[in-house]
Amino acid sequence: MPERVRLGIVGLGVEGAAYANFIAQGKVPNMVIGAVSDVNPAREEAAKEYGVKFFSDYKEMITSGLVDAVVTTVPHYLHPEVGIFALENNVHALVEKPVGVYTKQAQRLIDLAKQKPELKFGVFFNQRTNPLYKDLRELFVSGELGALRHTSWIITNWWRPQGYYDMSAWRATWGGEGGGVLVNQAPHQLDLWQWICGVPKSVFAKVQFGFRRDIAVEDEVNALVSFDNGATGSFMTATHDMMGTDRLEILCDSGKIVVENSKDVTIWRLKKPEQELSKAMSMEEVGKLFSGQLDTSAFMTKETKQYTSVWGEQHSEVMRNFAAAIHGEEELLAPGADGIHGVRLANAIHLSAWTGSEVSIEKFDDDAYLAQLNKRIREEGKFEERN
Amino acid sequence: MPERVRLGIVGLGVEGAAYANFIAQGKVPNMVIGAVSDVNPAREEAAKEYGVKFFSDYKEMITSGLVDAVVTTVPHYLHPEVGIFALENNVHALVEKPVGVYTKQAQRLIDLAKQKPELKFGVFFNQRTNPLYKDLRELFVSGELGALRHTSWIITNWWRPQGYYDMSAWRATWGGEGGGVLVNQAPHQLDLWQWICGVPKSVFAKVQFGFRRDIAVEDEVNALVSFDNGATGSFMTATHDMMGTDRLEILCDSGKIVVENSKDVTIWRLKKPEQELSKAMSMEEVGKLFSGQLDTSAFMTKETKQYTSVWGEQHSEVMRNFAAAIHGEEELLAPGADGIHGVRLANAIHLSAWTGSEVSIEKFDDDAYLAQLNKRIREEGKFEERN
Repeated sequence: MPERVRLGIVGLGVEGAAYANFIAQGKVPNMVIGAVSDVNPAREEAAKEYGVKFFSDYKEMITSGLVDAVVTTVPHYLHPEVGIFALENNVHALVEKPVGVYTKQAQRLIDLAKQKPELKFGVFFNQRTNPLYKDLRELFVSGELGALRHTSWIITNWWRPQGYYDMSAWRATWGGEGGGVLVNQAPHQLDLWQWICGVPKSVFAKVQFGFRRDIAVEDEVNALVSFDNGATGSFMTATHDMMGTDRLEILCDSGKIVVENSKDVTIWRLKKPEQELSKAMSMEEVGKLFSGQLDTSAFMTKETKQYTSVWGEQHSEVMRNFAAAIHGEEELLAPGADGIHGVRLANAIHLSAWTGSEVSIEKFDDDAYLAQLNKRIREEGKFEERN
Repeated sequence: MPERVRLGIVGLGVEGAAYANFIAQGKVPNMVIGAVSDVNPAREEAAKEYGVKFFSDYKEMITSGLVDAVVTTVPHYLHPEVGIFALENNVHALVEKPVGVYTKQAQRLIDLAKQKPELKFGVFFNQRTNPLYKDLRELFVSGELGALRHTSWIITNWWRPQGYYDMSAWRATWGGEGGGVLVNQAPHQLDLWQWICGVPKSVFAKVQFGFRRDIAVEDEVNALVSFDNGATGSFMTATHDMMGTDRLEILCDSGKIVVENSKDVTIWRLKKPEQELSKAMSMEEVGKLFSGQLDTSAFMTKETKQYTSVWGEQHSEVMRNFAAAIHGEEELLAPGADGIHGVRLANAIHLSAWTGSEVSIEKFDDDAYLAQLNKRIREEGKFEERN
């Protein structure tokens, strides 16, 4: 059995401490804490509890020889910076979501990782370990339900009160965070949606910036996307709905999936592709349809399932899979390069809202997005522009 | 008690015959069948069963003195034509939905009706008699839930097989019907949505024409709308989903409504407006939120209700209300002028899809829409252009 992977934790905040605890509690059997870094010297005390060395500079930790890999639990703009420094110094990188705030930055990390195939580069999409979404992806990819027609996700159970936004000066700013619900909360769904249904070609969006919260960035998003072959999708998210909805619907040529609250799944399977059933229907049956006498349930089966998923288990599983990939035992569940899709869709949604027009995802203009983002950082006047 | 209103039925097809039967069965106590007209002479036999005179020309029926009012169960393009002829001849008009296929045509009827205040002009929005939607409108208009934030309606239980479209040469053509699901099936929801939530200012739409049906017009619609004050809405409908969804969500400043299958209603009422709750939340409570220890249900009440509504009762109720309005006893539940909102939203959705850009509803360009519609009628080459 190979040595356990020594993980360097960059940032010992709420998330970093949670990961450290999972490892310390033995929940990630193929991993140990190698060292901890944080810009806040007060966190050295906490690091001592894990019996590891503390660094105030993550770069010193990465070059110390004490860690084989790092995880980047730091503000979003830093994810690719830390990831790039790790890979440049031959340390594996498990990058928090989103893999970058803007595509140009995320792409730099992804391009570097391609040149270092001997190093593992993963993104922390813990929800990919959720059996519900793993099963849905498997079902969709199997082709059993046929081609996609339409999908919608209403995901408004990301309720965040004003006090959350007021916690840190960088939060919910263009220069410090680079966006709102699209960058902070919804990246999980932006990933799962595309992981299961595929990557859209274009998007039109109506985005509300500081709609019901006193913030510069978005607290509500409405997006309409086009996939290949005429399929469409709708994505709605917000942080101001205290009665949050989580409802995913996927309509295909030969069936349909509805997921409520990331727990209750209903799957309809048509006995033949819908267009065949439609074409084969006699005029007598059409007549019955209108008088309510046609039992369409005879043309399909309906399955319902309930799932439970435990928050901490997802995170431990991502770390276990990452260490197993380093050991050459498993494929990465969430390769870092996959992270570009969520970043690009989020950027394209912003850009569509800012320009009032539909935006190509296939031929996304990274520079146009960055220019618009920098315009907002400049007007905000609190942080430096990005490149 | 006043005389019973003598209704002339223009078109004795499936719908017209159903209405005639409701009246003949005494389900509309303040109405009798005055006469029947149909271009198909074979329907004279059916008219005899009701013991009334049959006309092959609706104009002769309207000027015969045998009817006080008409209902227009004829193809959509004819609704305003018949309505105008009736009002011009001092006969009350109950016009089937949609009140017109395009705004310019619908507006001519509405303008004429304004000059004839002594005549009643109603639109056959039978779903407005559904107690569920009446209650929702009352709740919304009362202001108890506060201002609208977001609303979405997924209404795909309008499943129609290919055989339905192949029944008549005019069906699902630009020249004969003027549209697909927006003109034929969804006008009810386009009306209810705006009746409850208000009229949007603009729309962007992705519309699929002949996507999964062999037709010229749309079998799928995805629309994003903007209301006043930053509120947004999403409307999705299709005729190709055999497992049809019907789910309406209305999120307001002080509560939320979810309706499933036009039957099951859930209403959340916040104890204070959401922004007040958001601002008043202490850092301790914010902390609890993230560790899953904050019970947000303490800030709201949740009510669930189940409704049943009988299809035929709705239609009889529209006719009864119309006759009562003629007698000066009641206000019209669905004044004809209200019909313009559904027509305009449907037209704006088409226009947005055709131009690939957002379309103003407030300043809708009736001529631009008609020009685009006529272009499609011309290319189709089966029917005459409209004016």
